[in-house]
Amino acid sequence: MEHVSSLSLLQTPAAIVDRDKLQRNCDRMTVRAQTHRINLRPHLKTTKAAKIAEIATKQHFGGITVSTVAEAFYFNAHGFQDITYAVGLAPHKLPALAALQKEGAHINILIDEVAAIHAIDEAARNLQSTFPVFIEVDSGERRGGVSPDGQQLLDVAAGIVNSNSLTIAGVLTHAGHSYTGTTTDEIVEIAEQERSGAVLAATRLRGMGFDCQTVSIGSTPSVSHAASFEGVTEIRPGVYIFGDMQQVALGTCGIDDVAYSVLATVIGHNHGARRILVDAGSLALSKDGGRGPGANLPTYGRVATVDGRILPGLYLSTLYQEHGLIASKWEEPPYDSLPIGHKVRLLPNHSCLSAASFDEYFVVQNGSQITEIWDKTRGW
Amino acid sequence: MEHVSSLSLLQTPAAIVDRDKLQRNCDRMTVRAQTHRINLRPHLKTTKAAKIAEIATKQHFGGITVSTVAEAFYFNAHGFQDITYAVGLAPHKLPALAALQKEGAHINILIDEVAAIHAIDEAARNLQSTFPVFIEVDSGERRGGVSPDGQQLLDVAAGIVNSNSLTIAGVLTHAGHSYTGTTTDEIVEIAEQERSGAVLAATRLRGMGFDCQTVSIGSTPSVSHAASFEGVTEIRPGVYIFGDMQQVALGTCGIDDVAYSVLATVIGHNHGARRILVDAGSLALSKDGGRGPGANLPTYGRVATVDGRILPGLYLSTLYQEHGLIASKWEEPPYDSLPIGHKVRLLPNHSCLSAASFDEYFVVQNGSQITEIWDKTRGW
Repeated sequence: MEHVSSLSLLQTPAAIVDRDKLQRNCDRMTVRAQTHRINLRPHLKTTKAAKIAEIATKQHFGGITVSTVAEAFYFNAHGFQDITYAVGLAPHKLPALAALQKEGAHINILIDEVAAIHAIDEAARNLQSTFPVFIEVDSGERRGGVSPDGQQLLDVAAGIVNSNSLTIAGVLTHAGHSYTGTTTDEIVEIAEQERSGAVLAATRLRGMGFDCQTVSIGSTPSVSHAASFEGVTEIRPGVYIFGDMQQVALGTCGIDDVAYSVLATVIGHNHGARRILVDAGSLALSKDGGRGPGANLPTYGRVATVDGRILPGLYLSTLYQEHGLIASKWEEPPYDSLPIGHKVRLLPNHSCLSAASFDEYFVVQNGSQITEIWDKTRGW
Repeated sequence: MEHVSSLSLLQTPAAIVDRDKLQRNCDRMTVRAQTHRINLRPHLKTTKAAKIAEIATKQHFGGITVSTVAEAFYFNAHGFQDITYAVGLAPHKLPALAALQKEGAHINILIDEVAAIHAIDEAARNLQSTFPVFIEVDSGERRGGVSPDGQQLLDVAAGIVNSNSLTIAGVLTHAGHSYTGTTTDEIVEIAEQERSGAVLAATRLRGMGFDCQTVSIGSTPSVSHAASFEGVTEIRPGVYIFGDMQQVALGTCGIDDVAYSVLATVIGHNHGARRILVDAGSLALSKDGGRGPGANLPTYGRVATVDGRILPGLYLSTLYQEHGLIASKWEEPPYDSLPIGHKVRLLPNHSCLSAASFDEYFVVQNGSQITEIWDKTRGW
């Protein structure tokens, strides 16, 4: 951890969080949840930081979503007790989660297959633990989950009810295919698939006499654009806290809302190739590519000044492990205003994968002044 | 760090290294270097582990290549003193590298621009340090480096000679465009561009009376396929130590030579989408995609049993942050032989980006028995 007060003195690459933008992004989602009277259980796989979890859960019920056992332990150690582990469960992970339960945490797990119930139930019984279970529903993403209108939903519910150590917490779905929406209308339609799929599953379960208290949906694009939340009780978006260029393209935030960036240093100019080189590559920014700026150029992100002003027309055209290449949508990149040693902020296409590489966030307010350093978790 | 003796008991995802395959890969490159009487200075940005550096430098002069200051510190702490930091230098990184010099390390840095020399020289002088400098040459990759036949090469050399704290160590190039070769003939041609570019630059420097002791080239595809190393004194390949599916596609190793894999657990079956879900996604495997198996299917990697036997026809079709989807090139993936909780090994497309996410390697010999745990570095 470094003790410097300005981004211009920081080692690079480094992960930067704009405190005010992050607060605004959280406030916007809070208003949305409150307007629709739904619980917000933010997914913390993007940000992985306790300070951010505190901001994101303020004014909410305190529940969070995680994607790794490491995140569950980290957030529990920082006082978060109501945790949904929202990845299909590998039975060998149960002892760790049971240890958290024994320390007072409330851990919800996911199941979408009858075959899994027996193994998980037996493991839970051996650990003398009980687990509330979300039945994962596939609302069109075709990743995990049972069909909302099929027999498997009822078979899984019956399996849970007949088990020794498991109870039904509700149904849970994730419309990850909202990321493929090319227009707002398409995303609105996918959001409605997500809502109606989850509600159909819950209605069918309740109709057969099963408990189904929570109806949980969530992806930042779908909950940002959804026209209705009728029947939904909980949303689990995650990347809205930071935003990124992908979210800008999906219309869930503006480019001035992106609260996460990677600080990098100019390390070279390639006049022949018309590129400026920086010391942040695919490890710092991830190889999750997108399109922009404006014209349909392939890109790994956009470029801003060290105090956060977007540099129009500049984009990351190519990434190597520790090198990034900045190109201009016009003639040439501005070599003179970006000399060697000069620092820039890079707005990645996908902030989840970028942030996961870093051990801490340098928090700025009003430009480039570092006000705090926030610890975070990573790995598994 | 976990104390288990078999992969079948390990938490997942985890990074696995096959000790025998790694040794074979190192031996093959050793034979190549010795046959052509060139020094091998392995690039350790892929593997980032001291134990692996020991194996890779055995029978060689002990020099290594790194891509981050963190790697330079880590390897120096493990006894490696001759280190080339092979990324264009941001001047603010000089104090850290000077601190290593003061502890007896020999750190070579890269420069490819006259404008950089003054800032770096001044910083070095203030630190009372001197640095040997490689002039980076662009042999066709169009990333960093001066043209081997242009005036800039001579201007940079003159700038270094006229500086207070810098000396010319030689010329260095990296034919990263060897990765775009679609046939062995194409890669052989790119390797010859790399060699002839570096040798031309060295010859021109020497002709003008400049010192140019080392002529350093390197990328695993180019040095594996090169027809000639005439005039070259050093090679810096890195990923050959592990191999990966990209290297298999480039013909630098066979699929049975891939020494690095990610252990994962089956967490679900999606019969509708014909996919098997595992708990290793883009954070564990990286979004660097490729093509395979056989047919031109997009893929993030291949699938093997827990003891390392390739499962024919299976491939990773889609990655989410913590989910991977396994598909079959035939009808359906084998749900029955890959039940929930079952472990598999995944051979990523790009081992550099995958390995960078992990904190240690579980080392296996003869199948799935863990014989050692090797620490490594990561981050910056």
